[in-house]
Amino acid sequence: MPESNIIYVGSKPVMNYVLAAITIFHGNIKEVLIKARGRAISRSVDVAEIIKNKFLTDIKVKSITTGTEMLRTEDGNEFNTSTIEIILERGGD
Amino acid sequence: MPESNIIYVGSKPVMNYVLAAITIFHGNIKEVLIKARGRAISRSVDVAEIIKNKFLTDIKVKSITTGTEMLRTEDGNEFNTSTIEIILERGGD
Repeated sequence: MPESNIIYVGSKPVMNYVLAAITIFHGNIKEVLIKARGRAISRSVDVAEIIKNKFLTDIKVKSITTGTEMLRTEDGNEFNTSTIEIILERGGD
Repeated sequence: MPESNIIYVGSKPVMNYVLAAITIFHGNIKEVLIKARGRAISRSVDVAEIIKNKFLTDIKVKSITTGTEMLRTEDGNEFNTSTIEIILERGGD
């Protein structure tokens, strides 16, 4: 998937990411990938749910996958964090 | 799925839920459902990832679904919250 169709959900308000996704779909794009790590995972699910329930009702969740990434802090400590990838798809087959 | 095979992830430490799931799997159960709402969604993904990466490596994620529920506060206000259901499966076909 091209980088321009990926939304990285962080600590901004949910609606920032919702609007970013809607803007991409309005460019006649069929799929948007929503990615998040750690505590932003909850927010990424909110983003997907709000898009498909309130704004673009022809969008559905194509797939959800979770994973684990190792991150390193500035002082060299390593820790694991969970990740999520939600693919939203327009229309369907 | 019987209620006894469902784990509701809330605000307790992650390892409480991890150990609860491992206990269920040790009872020769094939599937465990992990459910969470709102900000606990991130923690539920941590629970699933820790179980399959660190404790029971024959477990895999069978499915992940998200949803939206309407909740009501004590003073009668309604608000939407996101939900997640993660089904972990032992072995698999």
